[in-house]
Amino acid sequence: MIKVGIVGATGYTGIELLRLLSAHRGVDICYVASRSEAGKSIRDVFPFFKGGAYLFEPVDLSRLSACDVVFFATPHGIAMKSAESLLSAGVKIIDLSADFRLKDAKEWQRWYGEAHASEYLLKEAVYGLPEKNRKQVQSARLIANPGCYPTAIQLGWLPLLSTNWIDAQTFIADAKSGVSGAGRVAKLGSLYAEVHENFKAYGIEGHRHLPEIRAQIQEGMHGDNVSLVFTPHLVPMMRGILATLYVRTTENFKLTESQLQSYYQDFYQGDAFVEVLPVGKYPETRNVRGTNLCQLGVRYLPSERMILVVSAIDNLVKGAAGQAVQNMNLIFDLEESCGLNLSAWAP
Amino acid sequence: MIKVGIVGATGYTGIELLRLLSAHRGVDICYVASRSEAGKSIRDVFPFFKGGAYLFEPVDLSRLSACDVVFFATPHGIAMKSAESLLSAGVKIIDLSADFRLKDAKEWQRWYGEAHASEYLLKEAVYGLPEKNRKQVQSARLIANPGCYPTAIQLGWLPLLSTNWIDAQTFIADAKSGVSGAGRVAKLGSLYAEVHENFKAYGIEGHRHLPEIRAQIQEGMHGDNVSLVFTPHLVPMMRGILATLYVRTTENFKLTESQLQSYYQDFYQGDAFVEVLPVGKYPETRNVRGTNLCQLGVRYLPSERMILVVSAIDNLVKGAAGQAVQNMNLIFDLEESCGLNLSAWAP
Amino acid sequence: MIKVGIVGATGYTGIELLRLLSAHRGVDICYVASRSEAGKSIRDVFPFFKGGAYLFEPVDLSRLSACDVVFFATPHGIAMKSAESLLSAGVKIIDLSADFRLKDAKEWQRWYGEAHASEYLLKEAVYGLPEKNRKQVQSARLIANPGCYPTAIQLGWLPLLSTNWIDAQTFIADAKSGVSGAGRVAKLGSLYAEVHENFKAYGIEGHRHLPEIRAQIQEGMHGDNVSLVFTPHLVPMMRGILATLYVRTTENFKLTESQLQSYYQDFYQGDAFVEVLPVGKYPETRNVRGTNLCQLGVRYLPSERMILVVSAIDNLVKGAAGQAVQNMNLIFDLEESCGLNLSAWAP
Amino acid sequence: MIKVGIVGATGYTGIELLRLLSAHRGVDICYVASRSEAGKSIRDVFPFFKGGAYLFEPVDLSRLSACDVVFFATPHGIAMKSAESLLSAGVKIIDLSADFRLKDAKEWQRWYGEAHASEYLLKEAVYGLPEKNRKQVQSARLIANPGCYPTAIQLGWLPLLSTNWIDAQTFIADAKSGVSGAGRVAKLGSLYAEVHENFKAYGIEGHRHLPEIRAQIQEGMHGDNVSLVFTPHLVPMMRGILATLYVRTTENFKLTESQLQSYYQDFYQGDAFVEVLPVGKYPETRNVRGTNLCQLGVRYLPSERMILVVSAIDNLVKGAAGQAVQNMNLIFDLEESCGLNLSAWAP
Repeated sequence: MIKVGIVGATGYTGIELLRLLSAHRGVDICYVASRSEAGKSIRDVFPFFKGGAYLFEPVDLSRLSACDVVFFATPHGIAMKSAESLLSAGVKIIDLSADFRLKDAKEWQRWYGEAHASEYLLKEAVYGLPEKNRKQVQSARLIANPGCYPTAIQLGWLPLLSTNWIDAQTFIADAKSGVSGAGRVAKLGSLYAEVHENFKAYGIEGHRHLPEIRAQIQEGMHGDNVSLVFTPHLVPMMRGILATLYVRTTENFKLTESQLQSYYQDFYQGDAFVEVLPVGKYPETRNVRGTNLCQLGVRYLPSERMILVVSAIDNLVKGAAGQAVQNMNLIFDLEESCGLNLSAWAP
Repeated sequence: MIKVGIVGATGYTGIELLRLLSAHRGVDICYVASRSEAGKSIRDVFPFFKGGAYLFEPVDLSRLSACDVVFFATPHGIAMKSAESLLSAGVKIIDLSADFRLKDAKEWQRWYGEAHASEYLLKEAVYGLPEKNRKQVQSARLIANPGCYPTAIQLGWLPLLSTNWIDAQTFIADAKSGVSGAGRVAKLGSLYAEVHENFKAYGIEGHRHLPEIRAQIQEGMHGDNVSLVFTPHLVPMMRGILATLYVRTTENFKLTESQLQSYYQDFYQGDAFVEVLPVGKYPETRNVRGTNLCQLGVRYLPSERMILVVSAIDNLVKGAAGQAVQNMNLIFDLEESCGLNLSAWAP
Repeated sequence: MIKVGIVGATGYTGIELLRLLSAHRGVDICYVASRSEAGKSIRDVFPFFKGGAYLFEPVDLSRLSACDVVFFATPHGIAMKSAESLLSAGVKIIDLSADFRLKDAKEWQRWYGEAHASEYLLKEAVYGLPEKNRKQVQSARLIANPGCYPTAIQLGWLPLLSTNWIDAQTFIADAKSGVSGAGRVAKLGSLYAEVHENFKAYGIEGHRHLPEIRAQIQEGMHGDNVSLVFTPHLVPMMRGILATLYVRTTENFKLTESQLQSYYQDFYQGDAFVEVLPVGKYPETRNVRGTNLCQLGVRYLPSERMILVVSAIDNLVKGAAGQAVQNMNLIFDLEESCGLNLSAWAP
Repeated sequence: MIKVGIVGATGYTGIELLRLLSAHRGVDICYVASRSEAGKSIRDVFPFFKGGAYLFEPVDLSRLSACDVVFFATPHGIAMKSAESLLSAGVKIIDLSADFRLKDAKEWQRWYGEAHASEYLLKEAVYGLPEKNRKQVQSARLIANPGCYPTAIQLGWLPLLSTNWIDAQTFIADAKSGVSGAGRVAKLGSLYAEVHENFKAYGIEGHRHLPEIRAQIQEGMHGDNVSLVFTPHLVPMMRGILATLYVRTTENFKLTESQLQSYYQDFYQGDAFVEVLPVGKYPETRNVRGTNLCQLGVRYLPSERMILVVSAIDNLVKGAAGQAVQNMNLIFDLEESCGLNLSAWAP
């Protein structure tokens, strides 16, 4: 049994992680820490939770050091301060925050407004998108779990990056997210009465997921100079991200739409959590709600020389907690889908 | 493995039943029938479903006769026409429709507008509320699975019925339901644009669940003449029923609120799916969403001589498909909670 | 033109008041004060507002003293501290907060946790429910604008209070409100992700509107000892209150349902903002959304000896800002419906 | 007073038109026809409507011929059959359906699946986007009222079309609409339980608004060969369209973002219903809800050589009924904003 610790279990990502890990057979949850709710039982904070009678404890590095793996489901700026100590105690770290997602400490500082506390670990950290970096994840000590938007967007474009079919100057990601992505934090803009019956773009001037997506795509394009427009929107719903992805083809692209769909299916053949829909079918967020799946629909518009990909995930699962568990499974050599055979329900 | 057939698998109750049964280890789903979607694959109709690759077939009694148990998740008026034939073939029936919920054929005809097709089976049918009739369920051939409102309301009052603490003339059930209860049927009143941002009472003139609730409470009160007011309301949400239950106490009632809560807890001690909350805590529908749980909160108002009970269920699970599976487990001598250890999630 | 000042214009009630007053032809909005947003323009805070280019200013009693009437759309505890000074400057006050709704200062202190700052004004304050106290309002200096629940509930029962038809020991108000009633305040329980797809009762242990409703009904019943159960619930929607009201009849009640409906219609004949629906029709919150209307539906259940009334209002209009404007119209001898001919829209 | 007739008053567009026209001082509503609800009073069908006691009558061309103007708020295929007769009786027609939006009858047939019944009128019909065609509208007999998506999208791009700043091959309109756009029609996909808590793209294979938008943009670009990708999405809300618009700049574009914003403001100086937000501000659908406004936010991304415009309207007002009234005002030489000074409210 893998001894697991969780720091920051009282956010929406944290409680989702607890839901998944408490039903995971290979795992023993040893320590559940929360700065804000320490001392309370999980029943007090989340009366819907039936996965066990945990007590939220204060963050205690010595206790965390006794775990095999520690998940950080904290705001940015926390994990980077404890990482070194835990790693040197032999603990694996899966960080669901943004602390290790960028390789460039200056870029990190520009977007997060403080100096990075563990710059030397940025290089070691493995970007935990298994569909891209499965091998590196398996041998990693420190995982930077991708952001929710970056997961949806990268899975949509990943099959194209290694080809010469697309124009690196023409990436547009028009992405839409449910509200749970804003976290369990009392702020005016997240009130029901502010979100309900409203739709808006936000972060147009620069969303923190932009440098993460750009850097990863740049890497996938082997350094081609990438131009990317990323527009996030807020949908009046709880869970789900749908990204509508536009990129122009080059003259090298010769496939039909149906061949493109086959190519995508082949590309993701070994990936249990990516589902490429048949030609003419497109994802809906409810199809993946509560699950670790990413659904993709692809379309080729020949006269516009455009490949259009629609990508849907549950932001709290494949976009956060589920992907973290997937990474844990890989690190500890369990079956990749262990504890992740979740079924969506509707209505 | 129990060989299972489902008739009417393409309604919201039907697909929920498929969700539960496809994850149930003791069950082999042999036949999935739908009049409206026959010939289609489940993937076509419910692209979120990951529990198996079923094909909806036309209703065929001879094929259904080869099953050990057949679930009817149909509108009323269907099950009663096939029951005799299936029963004589040795098949158990769990009817999620209203066909066998009333004992009185005339009363049935008054509410459903047609003569009952199997009047003689009404007496045999066991009312499948396990918390009330567990023993009878275990040996039943034909289960009338309770309605969603009746389940929420009865579980709230059941502990009181066998006492002499309450005035049988003073039952008031003010109940509120999400929209999925109206079914997967294209009607104007169920449109998003009609339901969203609206709250209303409905069925005040007489809801079909009223005679069911009244008859069951009457039975529980050993024939005392029961007076019951039942007011259903429509909540702009998908799943969930919350019933706010009012009944006056008689002079025989001497408990404190805390003793009342303990009495409720003791009453439901052996019932895995009823959770009596501590004094001062009350249910919310999201606490039971997606699960087979009923949450209860009790309050005693001494100066008003009133016992107030709040009861919450998921109308599609404990109010329909989950309870049906619970009944199946009892009939086939499986553990009662087999396949029903579902965990709610939020947000 | 009536010179108007508003204190607390940046809550949901305050902005609704601005919406109504800025379209009111008899009014000149002179001073718009906000403690929290002072210095900002209304466009910054409410980009949807098109009624004029106001600036939120700090609260300044001397400036307010130059107004003819000042509205307080503040949390409780603010108006009571400025009332004396403004009244002595000849300013009329319409207080939308709870400061002057109770006559008994001790009762006020029990529910609001602090001593009342203007106890001697409690007696003078007129309870601003025009359908009950129109005459007193016309000559009032200080109006206690009723709470939202109390408005919906009292309008439902008002016609019955002066009769001897009902049993004063049997009032039950099962009320449901949209979320805007919780105010424009950043708190966890009002987050979209906490409210959406959930329904719950709250304040069962004692809601602050209870003493207000009880005292008013007691008064209406001419001192009969009233027993009232009041259960508020939270509906996942923005605006609207629907109250389902139960009270038992005495032997003196001899009307048919249709006569009861006529009696209600006659009772409210002169009241432009109360609409009694035909027999068999019941209110929905969307029918009154955005308007100052109260819709009522009545039903008599003879075998249960019960009168059931369903009452719907928009909590921010008839339950707050609209009623305040209605009171202002009465005080300043304008037509009662001036500025209040609002039309609901749907979807 | 303009004598007005409405055909198809019982859809969401129709009732919105009735809301606006019943409050319009220059108008006398003479005839309200509905095929589906003929014989019913408006109160029966829309109990929230307070604008007058209309009766829905069957469609009768002779009665309609006595009107000065007839609005068609019908599905496509109706107006084109009555247009000739009404026009020859001297009646103006404002058609809110798609019948006269395309100039090319073959294109119309390709998208609507039947031959056009009044091909020769297609040329005469004026495309009723006043911000583009104000003069032509003023002297028109027959108005093709634009679709909702086309309105939001064109108003976003209109200022750019007459310049040489943009690359005609690079138009992308990623548009999101609330559900009321699907109409008051009982279909499975519009059910609350299908729409709520879900987000999806639809019509990717070809939405009927695509040829309308493309033809208009083509015209605006003076025949440049336009390449346009249009992706509509369904938002779980009632009203509102938000279009996120991407187009690449050519080398001729030399403005800064701030200059671009000024240019847009100047362009729309005389247009009361287009509001260009300051640099750094972007529209939200609730800012225009219930109003005839279009809000625009513009952004220039120099390194991506991209102009990004966000455009928001209320699909039932500026996207349908409000624009129709605006056109009527122009035709009958009333002030353009007569009856359209509507104020949004929130929450």
